Amino acid sequence: MSELTTEQKVDAAETAALKLAQRSETERNAGLEAIADAIEAQSDEILEANATDVDEAEAMLEAGEYTQALVDRLALSESKIESIAEMVRSVAGQDDPLGETLEARRLDDGLELYKRSVPIGVIGTVFESRPDALVQIAALSLKSGNAAILKGGSEASRSNRVLYEIIEEATSDLPTGWAQLIEARADVNALLEMDDSVDLLMPRGSSEFVKYIQDNTSIPVLGHTEGVCHVYVDDEADLSMAAEVAHDAKVQYPAACNAAETLLIHEAVAEEFVPEIADRYEETGVEMRGDDRVREIVDTDVEMDAATEADWSTEYGDLIISLKVVDSLVEAVDHINEYGSKHTDSIISQDADNARVFMQGIDSASVFHNASTRFSDGYRFGLGAEVGISTGKIHARGPVGLGGLTTYQYFLEGDGQIVASYSGQNAREYVHEEFDGEWTPGRLSESTVTQ
Amino acid sequence: MSELTTEQKVDAAETAALKLAQRSETERNAGLEAIADAIEAQSDEILEANATDVDEAEAMLEAGEYTQALVDRLALSESKIESIAEMVRSVAGQDDPLGETLEARRLDDGLELYKRSVPIGVIGTVFESRPDALVQIAALSLKSGNAAILKGGSEASRSNRVLYEIIEEATSDLPTGWAQLIEARADVNALLEMDDSVDLLMPRGSSEFVKYIQDNTSIPVLGHTEGVCHVYVDDEADLSMAAEVAHDAKVQYPAACNAAETLLIHEAVAEEFVPEIADRYEETGVEMRGDDRVREIVDTDVEMDAATEADWSTEYGDLIISLKVVDSLVEAVDHINEYGSKHTDSIISQDADNARVFMQGIDSASVFHNASTRFSDGYRFGLGAEVGISTGKIHARGPVGLGGLTTYQYFLEGDGQIVASYSGQNAREYVHEEFDGEWTPGRLSESTVTQ
Repeated sequence: MSELTTEQKVDAAETAALKLAQRSETERNAGLEAIADAIEAQSDEILEANATDVDEAEAMLEAGEYTQALVDRLALSESKIESIAEMVRSVAGQDDPLGETLEARRLDDGLELYKRSVPIGVIGTVFESRPDALVQIAALSLKSGNAAILKGGSEASRSNRVLYEIIEEATSDLPTGWAQLIEARADVNALLEMDDSVDLLMPRGSSEFVKYIQDNTSIPVLGHTEGVCHVYVDDEADLSMAAEVAHDAKVQYPAACNAAETLLIHEAVAEEFVPEIADRYEETGVEMRGDDRVREIVDTDVEMDAATEADWSTEYGDLIISLKVVDSLVEAVDHINEYGSKHTDSIISQDADNARVFMQGIDSASVFHNASTRFSDGYRFGLGAEVGISTGKIHARGPVGLGGLTTYQYFLEGDGQIVASYSGQNAREYVHEEFDGEWTPGRLSESTVTQ
Repeated sequence: MSELTTEQKVDAAETAALKLAQRSETERNAGLEAIADAIEAQSDEILEANATDVDEAEAMLEAGEYTQALVDRLALSESKIESIAEMVRSVAGQDDPLGETLEARRLDDGLELYKRSVPIGVIGTVFESRPDALVQIAALSLKSGNAAILKGGSEASRSNRVLYEIIEEATSDLPTGWAQLIEARADVNALLEMDDSVDLLMPRGSSEFVKYIQDNTSIPVLGHTEGVCHVYVDDEADLSMAAEVAHDAKVQYPAACNAAETLLIHEAVAEEFVPEIADRYEETGVEMRGDDRVREIVDTDVEMDAATEADWSTEYGDLIISLKVVDSLVEAVDHINEYGSKHTDSIISQDADNARVFMQGIDSASVFHNASTRFSDGYRFGLGAEVGISTGKIHARGPVGLGGLTTYQYFLEGDGQIVASYSGQNAREYVHEEFDGEWTPGRLSESTVTQ
């Protein structure tokens, strides 16, 4: 490890990014395969470093500073290392997100414009303390041709350093400096200032942490703060379907950001539906918090606290749900736009018009009809490797695949055209005709070489 | 004009944006037609307000505070008003950027995912003192279903207020508050803080101003600071083509951001090319600033100052160009990546490999081969109405059409699917199959209605 400053590391990444962008898919995939092989080959070193991290974390656990869950997430094993290597190989196996022709347009005879996907450049990442996070983020960056500044949790510092050194060594055929490790909290603050060099930030962690990053940088941020997701049971709902979906959306994996936190029920079906879903939640150990109308309807033997104003905007991330009766579809839409987090919301209804009003009226990345909010996920959406979920509206929204780590560039192939020919008297006219074709430099001039 | 605070105006815009997003293309176009008609019908009022703005600006001109160019840009006439109305009608005539299906993917039988273009929401705009700018930005926002916060130059305040009132009245059938006028400089600073409500900022004006906005907000910014564009004459260039392009790129409209500011010449062709282009520039009155090698080559009767370090990163916006001899293609690429502004750069070469190295090596929004940098423009690119040119890499890059004012939303149509069915034993498998289709709510449930 060199003793470079954060500025020097970011400068090196910027230089490397320009070179990495020109490396072929084959070269980038070879780098990923080399990383996977090296991780397997050096598992002893990784486990040794990780054991020290875990020892320290266990001391902190005993001191009451850390939770058991944190220690569990931190600990690696042979089989976990094997699955990390497999994850890297699966990223290598994804379709290349680069060099895709997004548009091809003939501006005039012999003047062809191609809009092509290219890497973004330098991506700054700050992530949680699972050591596999460093490898995953480095792999996604390399696959998409981006240089990466990596900052992991301090709890995993020894594991991260060893993994970083393995990655650096395994990719020595790629432009030096494409991956950079930063380790101090102060370095994160330096990173946030470098808006001339860092093109995108990807923070992962608590809502408060992501919000802190968003509020303290002018670099674009890809990430999500909260997942306050809703299921709305319409007056035209198939109630057995509604119970299935409402149950799955809360219970199947309550810690996920796409789990439902609030169930809204149309008053016309509340008398029938509320007791049914309440029994079902109670059987599964879901804690319920209802508004007055829900609590009036529900059986007296069901435990249900009163929901407070704060409940409507809380991401429990646990087996807890808030329930509310609404008078109308419009009230449901308004409630979600007011209290939701623009993540994922679902309507259960057999009425197409109601579904349309709901889905078009809700300002969330993902709006569902008759399906569980838990489908909101890059893998389930078929996007391949998931980079993250964005609750921002710009650049990438909702579940983000490798495409979210690309931007585009316009490539114009001409044969000496000048703009003056297209103005004034006898001006040429633009053709503006879309066509299927791939950018091939020199294609238009080969037939007219005059030298 | 109400006496609302900036916060209240932005809140009103946020509410209106949710409603405007649901209005059909027909309704939005009717609003645009109504604006065009009203501008024509109320031209007297507009001219009256404008005359007061112009009077004040002329007083400032006499006091040496304003330039004649500013006064000229400010002044409206009957024919200019007519062309503003026509501009609004041409925006109405553009293809609808909303509701486009960008991807349709079958996740499983009866579970269909649609990625569709939708408005961004609330767009904050701060623009120069031409009064037509307000109308243009309002028209582009309305066409794309976005609410707009409009802040024009103080020189045009009376013209802007009348135009805004005309727009507000003409669109009374659309959600109230979709367009908001702010007038004080302090309101701009308030706007920059409202990252929870404003989804995108579009500043227009000087590089310093755009940079100021970028540095003082965490709201995403769409805009460009500088256009330091290059033409590189390769050792494999057709030199008569190079002279044509280098001349057009500088001379055809030197104030444009896509005009060339620096000409790089490979040393192998410098002896032949430099005297030719220098004569040509001199004939057209272009002031030249050369490096030592260019000045050695150039005829002694040609006036050419020595270029300073600052010249390489200066956007002259005028009939001035800097010239430099480079030893290699790689030096040209490195120079452009170091001093350029990631806007537009062009290589003149008959060698396809050199073109590829140049175009893939340069980190600019637009990279050209054998064509003038002046083609870098939304209209010439065939994007329709131009929203602006972006030198950022995220969301929208290079010339930006109406598509740059949209984002996307995922619409999932199901029939009661839950995630639990896709895990554990007997898990269903995802199909993940692209298909051609348009989102139609209820399509999947109509055949299976059980109520």
